[in-house]
Amino acid sequence: MKKPIKIAVIGGGSSYTPELMEGLIQHFHQMPIQEIWLVDIEEGQEKMQIVFELAQRMWKASGIHVPIIPTVNRRKALKDADFVLTQLRVGGLEARIMDERVALSYGMIGQETNGAAGIFKAFRTIPLMLEIVEEMKELCPNAWLINFTNPSGMITEAIIRYGHFHKIIGLCNLPYQAVLDEAKLLEKKPEDLVFRFAGLNHFHWHKVYDDKGNDVTLQILKKAKQQKLSTPANITQIDFQQELLESMNLIPCSYHTYYYNYDDMLKKQLQEFNMGNTRAQQVKKIEQKLFELYQDKHLDHQPEQLKQRGGAHYSTVACNILLAIYENKQSEMVVSTQNKGAISFLDPECVVEISSLIGANGASPICFDEFSYSAKGMLTLMKEFELCVCKAAVLGDYGLALEAFVMNPLIPSGQIAKNVLDELLVAHKKHLPQFQQVIETIEPAIEIKDDLVKKMLKQQDLLKE
Amino acid sequence: MKKPIKIAVIGGGSSYTPELMEGLIQHFHQMPIQEIWLVDIEEGQEKMQIVFELAQRMWKASGIHVPIIPTVNRRKALKDADFVLTQLRVGGLEARIMDERVALSYGMIGQETNGAAGIFKAFRTIPLMLEIVEEMKELCPNAWLINFTNPSGMITEAIIRYGHFHKIIGLCNLPYQAVLDEAKLLEKKPEDLVFRFAGLNHFHWHKVYDDKGNDVTLQILKKAKQQKLSTPANITQIDFQQELLESMNLIPCSYHTYYYNYDDMLKKQLQEFNMGNTRAQQVKKIEQKLFELYQDKHLDHQPEQLKQRGGAHYSTVACNILLAIYENKQSEMVVSTQNKGAISFLDPECVVEISSLIGANGASPICFDEFSYSAKGMLTLMKEFELCVCKAAVLGDYGLALEAFVMNPLIPSGQIAKNVLDELLVAHKKHLPQFQQVIETIEPAIEIKDDLVKKMLKQQDLLKE
Amino acid sequence: MKKPIKIAVIGGGSSYTPELMEGLIQHFHQMPIQEIWLVDIEEGQEKMQIVFELAQRMWKASGIHVPIIPTVNRRKALKDADFVLTQLRVGGLEARIMDERVALSYGMIGQETNGAAGIFKAFRTIPLMLEIVEEMKELCPNAWLINFTNPSGMITEAIIRYGHFHKIIGLCNLPYQAVLDEAKLLEKKPEDLVFRFAGLNHFHWHKVYDDKGNDVTLQILKKAKQQKLSTPANITQIDFQQELLESMNLIPCSYHTYYYNYDDMLKKQLQEFNMGNTRAQQVKKIEQKLFELYQDKHLDHQPEQLKQRGGAHYSTVACNILLAIYENKQSEMVVSTQNKGAISFLDPECVVEISSLIGANGASPICFDEFSYSAKGMLTLMKEFELCVCKAAVLGDYGLALEAFVMNPLIPSGQIAKNVLDELLVAHKKHLPQFQQVIETIEPAIEIKDDLVKKMLKQQDLLKE
Amino acid sequence: MKKPIKIAVIGGGSSYTPELMEGLIQHFHQMPIQEIWLVDIEEGQEKMQIVFELAQRMWKASGIHVPIIPTVNRRKALKDADFVLTQLRVGGLEARIMDERVALSYGMIGQETNGAAGIFKAFRTIPLMLEIVEEMKELCPNAWLINFTNPSGMITEAIIRYGHFHKIIGLCNLPYQAVLDEAKLLEKKPEDLVFRFAGLNHFHWHKVYDDKGNDVTLQILKKAKQQKLSTPANITQIDFQQELLESMNLIPCSYHTYYYNYDDMLKKQLQEFNMGNTRAQQVKKIEQKLFELYQDKHLDHQPEQLKQRGGAHYSTVACNILLAIYENKQSEMVVSTQNKGAISFLDPECVVEISSLIGANGASPICFDEFSYSAKGMLTLMKEFELCVCKAAVLGDYGLALEAFVMNPLIPSGQIAKNVLDELLVAHKKHLPQFQQVIETIEPAIEIKDDLVKKMLKQQDLLKE
Repeated sequence: MKKPIKIAVIGGGSSYTPELMEGLIQHFHQMPIQEIWLVDIEEGQEKMQIVFELAQRMWKASGIHVPIIPTVNRRKALKDADFVLTQLRVGGLEARIMDERVALSYGMIGQETNGAAGIFKAFRTIPLMLEIVEEMKELCPNAWLINFTNPSGMITEAIIRYGHFHKIIGLCNLPYQAVLDEAKLLEKKPEDLVFRFAGLNHFHWHKVYDDKGNDVTLQILKKAKQQKLSTPANITQIDFQQELLESMNLIPCSYHTYYYNYDDMLKKQLQEFNMGNTRAQQVKKIEQKLFELYQDKHLDHQPEQLKQRGGAHYSTVACNILLAIYENKQSEMVVSTQNKGAISFLDPECVVEISSLIGANGASPICFDEFSYSAKGMLTLMKEFELCVCKAAVLGDYGLALEAFVMNPLIPSGQIAKNVLDELLVAHKKHLPQFQQVIETIEPAIEIKDDLVKKMLKQQDLLKE
Repeated sequence: MKKPIKIAVIGGGSSYTPELMEGLIQHFHQMPIQEIWLVDIEEGQEKMQIVFELAQRMWKASGIHVPIIPTVNRRKALKDADFVLTQLRVGGLEARIMDERVALSYGMIGQETNGAAGIFKAFRTIPLMLEIVEEMKELCPNAWLINFTNPSGMITEAIIRYGHFHKIIGLCNLPYQAVLDEAKLLEKKPEDLVFRFAGLNHFHWHKVYDDKGNDVTLQILKKAKQQKLSTPANITQIDFQQELLESMNLIPCSYHTYYYNYDDMLKKQLQEFNMGNTRAQQVKKIEQKLFELYQDKHLDHQPEQLKQRGGAHYSTVACNILLAIYENKQSEMVVSTQNKGAISFLDPECVVEISSLIGANGASPICFDEFSYSAKGMLTLMKEFELCVCKAAVLGDYGLALEAFVMNPLIPSGQIAKNVLDELLVAHKKHLPQFQQVIETIEPAIEIKDDLVKKMLKQQDLLKE
Repeated sequence: MKKPIKIAVIGGGSSYTPELMEGLIQHFHQMPIQEIWLVDIEEGQEKMQIVFELAQRMWKASGIHVPIIPTVNRRKALKDADFVLTQLRVGGLEARIMDERVALSYGMIGQETNGAAGIFKAFRTIPLMLEIVEEMKELCPNAWLINFTNPSGMITEAIIRYGHFHKIIGLCNLPYQAVLDEAKLLEKKPEDLVFRFAGLNHFHWHKVYDDKGNDVTLQILKKAKQQKLSTPANITQIDFQQELLESMNLIPCSYHTYYYNYDDMLKKQLQEFNMGNTRAQQVKKIEQKLFELYQDKHLDHQPEQLKQRGGAHYSTVACNILLAIYENKQSEMVVSTQNKGAISFLDPECVVEISSLIGANGASPICFDEFSYSAKGMLTLMKEFELCVCKAAVLGDYGLALEAFVMNPLIPSGQIAKNVLDELLVAHKKHLPQFQQVIETIEPAIEIKDDLVKKMLKQQDLLKE
Repeated sequence: MKKPIKIAVIGGGSSYTPELMEGLIQHFHQMPIQEIWLVDIEEGQEKMQIVFELAQRMWKASGIHVPIIPTVNRRKALKDADFVLTQLRVGGLEARIMDERVALSYGMIGQETNGAAGIFKAFRTIPLMLEIVEEMKELCPNAWLINFTNPSGMITEAIIRYGHFHKIIGLCNLPYQAVLDEAKLLEKKPEDLVFRFAGLNHFHWHKVYDDKGNDVTLQILKKAKQQKLSTPANITQIDFQQELLESMNLIPCSYHTYYYNYDDMLKKQLQEFNMGNTRAQQVKKIEQKLFELYQDKHLDHQPEQLKQRGGAHYSTVACNILLAIYENKQSEMVVSTQNKGAISFLDPECVVEISSLIGANGASPICFDEFSYSAKGMLTLMKEFELCVCKAAVLGDYGLALEAFVMNPLIPSGQIAKNVLDELLVAHKKHLPQFQQVIETIEPAIEIKDDLVKKMLKQQDLLKE
């Protein structure tokens, strides 16, 4: 039996933590745990205390004794850790609401990890993640960093490229959900099908083969049209164009709807926005309810309501990766990791989201060479976009930030792009130390755009008719 | 002295032909001409006759005897030609007006060579150009094909990739204009500066160095901001964002304004559209006036008004390339030709627009490695887009056409994209034989979109306020 | 239960067939067999009959009834086959003896699949394999071709590139042997280690990781030095230079000894040659003995002596691949298949030998990015060499054959290379129809080199001292 | 008129300096000179004084006053220089003689810039060149470094890759000679032909086109066979195999004879070696004679005998590059510079020797895409070899040095390679500070190989028969 592990969860006060606990309890017999440290910041201490107490009740109910230590001292938590899980959110949901609402107020897509909002989530998060990695190099150089923090792909990229730290794997629950859904659609077990994913985080495609080696991608696309696949809780459902998908012979991920149904998604989002009900605002309400539930001293398991939060299967995916590494399983999972040629037209050193074998030696990507023209073109664009965002985030470079805005397919270029960029820089001033100098020159001028915003809002009203 | 050449001009009835004649007259002492054949289709015979008579008067006035032969028999014109110049327009200006107006009626950019309109110009033109190339292989296998027909880059790509014909050079007058303008801006002679261009036709960037080797790109960008550079007659002037250009350290081409100032350009275009005055419509009026002028029996030179047509320096560029090949000059020009590594991240076999040495052995591209993230990302996207359009044009493939629409940055994806695609397919039915089967299935359903169009038009009205 | 399979074994009279039978018998419960067809040519009928009778005795002893049909009618055997196994040898061992002895007579390495001999094995075999593939397209288009015929990598390359047939997997028993040996060396079970191979057939390297993810490549290299690893029966043992391997941090394959210990191997080979005892000659004797054994009417199992033949584990490897495909196992094996980016600096479309997941959908390569300068340089050279040999083999092109000789690291360039090329072309005239025209021009001049050969032989004598 | 330039010549005491002076005198009217500094080391002062006095007499005879300053203070010479020319030789001709004789004593090719000898020239020279570049960054950051020191390509690579200095152009007189010879062969003027070169320094190929664009490469190859092209004075003439060159459709450079006629060249070299007359020894005698001539107080021009030294046209090439930069000529020259995609299958950042446009902004490579399989394979191998040598030279890494030996096509691998490596490391101990630690461990063991050497020498005697 291998030695019990120490786990540090950064962003320990997250509403997702109970789900993680449930998974760790279930797999304890395979992967014994020495200690679990929950880390959060001062402002998050109250929420962390609630989560910590729930976690303690859950472990107690399981009959397994594992010490859980809540702390604001990250260095203590990291010291000699075997696995570091990051699930933090710089600026909290307020920052996300700001991202989405500002974008939408200009008539742009407002989405947590895509477009203008996604860029700013990266800007706020990357510097902190690089700090954590520096501490890991010192305090737990042999630990694996398992990152769930979004935008997961760009964060993995930044940590490898600028943090020069390679023991990181970026994760997302989206591919796992697709596997379950599509197996069900074909009335098969997931293990009787072969799924191969490739692309970027929240921008990947996949193909499916049956146990006779037949490509059943098209078959799934056709069935999905008839029977309506579920999409993640956070994405409005609009049908993909069947002719597009058949031409590509690829199954897109849910977030592709912003790129393939831009016009329709924008209209839907503007309706929600005008009703004061963006996704970020919805999530905030759900979170508040969850924390009320968590405080129930009798609750000693993950409440059913958490599943509606959006990050379904978070626990399964997290435990799968921990086990795959711990037991050197060489099992197939979809992760953000260095490309190494798996997508042959991208730089071998850049980070992609790709079906990989996972074991104690990390992730070994499996080659995927099935891209259509549009998939290849858009994927290359988005990878350069990610590289541009990462560099801008590290340097606090305004010109690169503007390049990122201009090249992003969800942001209309022109004066409007610059206005949103400027407004978000000023709005998130507190969490963007690297952009301080830039922000100081923008701030005085930011008022003047008010008129434009009002006009845009008027236009959006018209679209509601 | 080398032997006199036979030139065949396909689309000989074009209003540009007189400019070409002027150039050939001026360079006759360097490059003697045996015969000039003007070729056009039946419907164009009247215009060709006018142009032919003007051309005859021009050569007569020059005192040089060169036989000019107008014909609708393309095979006769091609027989043993040394140079074949193509400047044709399938469907005439009516087709362009249709392209631009349909796109605009859905609230999209409507531009001859970009977005939805550009795709359809390619769809109409590529099959004809492949026919011409097959005839050239038989009738004048050693001739050079000098292509001015737009979209010049995609046509060059299709001819090399699907026509397997390599003696083609694609041309555009845009880079030549930039050289003149920017030298003037710096108060230098063009020959005292080094200009290096790279990208795609109507989607390229360039850098400039002075005679001490200093990179003066930024200096030009700054001066251009103060003094306003002229843009081609066909493009509305909107300032590029200075921070964007400085971050890229590249000078974009005029057409980049659609990609870098999308939102602002769209608004301007919608205003023109609502006033019934799209660029295509303007051009039609100019053309009508030109042909009135051309009919003047006393006119024996290129009229001044031609210069305002948009294709300034057409003659200079055309004669430069003929001379560079004829005299094996190895002089530097910007042409559409196979990449061969000059842009290292694109396929060596694809067609790019690039500074090249031009001689009797064709074009030898000069390496260019100065792309920023956004330039690299957008360039790769646009090249895949071009490849997708070319293949769709050759196969008449609806799915690929839809992929091209979805990936193009000037076309919002979603139902609206499909609607514009369907409507343009039906509208150009006559000139799209390769898409006949597809069109038959779409045609019956096309009416239903009328309501949407009306709603969009109403929205556009609001933007005019 | 899936349906029972039909297997066609081309080169069915091979001495390896009994080993294959043993494997099929052992795995019959997992993979039921409908029929086994043994195919050979007229000249091989006698040997095939012996093998056929032994096979029948073996199946009978197993208590399982499977019809075995020996035939010289390849088309009948291929008809509706599920798996086609190729283990043929054009020209038999006589041709191999000729290859090796001619090379050695000029003082060059003479080795079945490497250097001049390997080139000629490819020249003789590729045209026949392309014929077989054309028949498969007609008679069993859904079958998988499992190729053991050497040079296995070049044959796989030729079949994909020139036969445009993709359902082929090339195999070799070398990697399997390495896994067994090295696990033993570390006193671990193979399944507790991770082995990753990459390169070309008979020209690959690998790395090993333990179950904690540690790179134990260097550890193996050090232990192997102390304890002497076994090498395949056909390769003389000379130690690799430890400093070289440590610098590369890669474990070479056994055949690399010709490239890393060229001078020493050459001397050993020349000694064997001068004693009239080249490897090919040894193999011939072993084969003769095997067939004597096979004729024993009481023998109903694979005789122990077969294991000393050189192709140990042939049966295991063959059955593993059949089962992985039949049961869609997605298990890791080392095969010759299209690169698809796994070795990022080689063309994604070329064939490499690489750790891959094997299932009903074929081989999915796993990325490998651990090449040192010398490994990268030599691998790229050898891949271009393979492409050159394949094209020369298909076209019967003398110039390309000479290019292949000149670039091969085991063939000294210059007049001597040309002489060996010419002599082997003439020697194998009967089996090189594609080179007939070339050979006719060479043949009359071939005598004149006799003197040189004699001189060379004299020199070699001196080396024996 | 641009400002007069300051030139610093490092290795000023070289016998080539008078030729350089003649060129600078001839071009003084185009490129006025403020000062010429000759720099050499203490041990070279006597030779430098002789050269300096001759240079002074030459300038005096020309009637132009240009101050020439000989010095051992390199920093003074570099201070504010416009051009730094490096033509140094670490260890002098003695070191070269050692390189070549040791290699030959083991029966290997011994050649100044190729094989074992070339590796050691790089090992001795790269550290010094990196020192010079560091001084240039401080003392003349805007100067261009024009490098003639061999191995010119590897030195350029090391300076860009490890010195991070980009204002360097590597030069060689070989391509210029080929242009002259081949134009003469075709009875044309060089300017009526187009020459395009690509590859590495002393490992490049070229193609030629006439003024009608016809590829006349094959025609030159055929004529060269009939009429015998001159080769550089330092290379023994052996005919290339015509079928090889025709298959490649490329003209190799003179040094390719070692790679394409390995066996024949080795025999010739061993003959010379056994007669105590290697090329290095010949050069030493020529040099001694030249310096005797130079001391003649009446000599005030470049003596005829210098032309037989091997570096013909050195002056022309040097003055051409200075003028092309000084006058921003954008003229075509063949130089060692960063690839930038010109050879599309090599890393855009690595250094190649390539036809480029030369101007004040440096070298812009012209794309070349005409490689055959063998050229592509060998070129990639040799580039990885160069990168390996450069890194070994910078780090003093024994393992990398051994990798370089093993992968080099002119060095037979095995124990013999290691022996030559060890012996040369010890032999050049004084000039290899970076390898000191390694050498200390080798030195005690070096004697034991004596026997082997004697045996090899005996063998070589036999070849002389």
